[in-house]
Amino acid sequence: MRLEKTRLLIEIADMGAIGEKRELTLRELAERFSVSPQTVLRVLDELEREGMITRHVEERKTYLEVSEKGLSFLEKLCERLEKVLYGGVILGEVVSGLGEGSYYVKLYSKRIKEYLGFEPYPGTLNVRVIFPKTIFDALASVRPILIPGFVKDGRTFGDVKAYPVGINGIEGAIVIPSRTIHPPRIAEVIAPVNLRDSLGLKDGDRVKIKVVAEGE
Amino acid sequence: MRLEKTRLLIEIADMGAIGEKRELTLRELAERFSVSPQTVLRVLDELEREGMITRHVEERKTYLEVSEKGLSFLEKLCERLEKVLYGGVILGEVVSGLGEGSYYVKLYSKRIKEYLGFEPYPGTLNVRVIFPKTIFDALASVRPILIPGFVKDGRTFGDVKAYPVGINGIEGAIVIPSRTIHPPRIAEVIAPVNLRDSLGLKDGDRVKIKVVAEGE
Repeated sequence: MRLEKTRLLIEIADMGAIGEKRELTLRELAERFSVSPQTVLRVLDELEREGMITRHVEERKTYLEVSEKGLSFLEKLCERLEKVLYGGVILGEVVSGLGEGSYYVKLYSKRIKEYLGFEPYPGTLNVRVIFPKTIFDALASVRPILIPGFVKDGRTFGDVKAYPVGINGIEGAIVIPSRTIHPPRIAEVIAPVNLRDSLGLKDGDRVKIKVVAEGE
Repeated sequence: MRLEKTRLLIEIADMGAIGEKRELTLRELAERFSVSPQTVLRVLDELEREGMITRHVEERKTYLEVSEKGLSFLEKLCERLEKVLYGGVILGEVVSGLGEGSYYVKLYSKRIKEYLGFEPYPGTLNVRVIFPKTIFDALASVRPILIPGFVKDGRTFGDVKAYPVGINGIEGAIVIPSRTIHPPRIAEVIAPVNLRDSLGLKDGDRVKIKVVAEGE
């Protein structure tokens, strides 16, 4: 069994050894990674040699601290992961809606035309989001187009946020009521065409939705 | 030279192999990590065996895709890094200010007392932020206390955001003008006492600032 330096470094940071020394808990670390204490010590040696951690011995106890170089390494790793993971790709599975989509798309149809530039097919493709865990993560980098709400027959219909997306080559938009705080688990996609028919999709099919960045 | 599975998996995701297959660029990968192509292949085997990637051969070309399990693994890693790194610790180095701090602290003194509960020493401790790269990352998890601005002698003094912090055991606050968009590289810390004297600090000394979470 091997132990990755990167993961041990994260574990040490998680012990609170950022900006202060923390006592080495060799046995715990070994158990956490299911490796021998010797393996942990060997990887600690490597981390120290590379300047990622500092080690300090006092009265037979060993203390560790993530160095500034180590922190900088972890920060870059974190930035890179965020960029790679939340670059605007959403993966999901086609599911059946309750038919409500059609009703709302018809109601907002004129405004969708005005704000998004296409006349929507009266229905939504419902996609259960598999990745990322929080759809807002994938949408964080783009500014939504706000479709203003209205009052009709004494009933209020709220603002809707529309995120332009491409789905298997067809341009459309994910629509989310503005008032929603919790990220929806089902992405509702509108497009100028019936996406299910055009793309030959059935329930359970996997789809990849690509968020269209501004200026594209 | 070893190649960590985690880092190879991130590299594959970065090739765009999320939700679609991407051609394996064995030589490039080997060069990027300064390892032999054989090493890359061995680690790819491990990643495939663990279900982190899928491999697909077509007309002598190999295609890779990060699996849902692989994506979930990377998402958890990213979440963990964000939590570990941006848990409210700021590391920095004491530097000299221009003496402006004193002027402003005196002006806002009454409001600081009212909103933060302490009468501030008329001066700020200036700390050049070393970690995290963006101080706002460390402050993202807490809601600042807004000290409202005012007009005096026809001059407007803007709102100030105050983030309660502990610095080597003394309670104080980082103060940032509300209008600032770019994260300041110098954190200005106020406290009921002269922090330089009380903590025996001189220019170049390292300090650890702990952001105080709400409810603490």
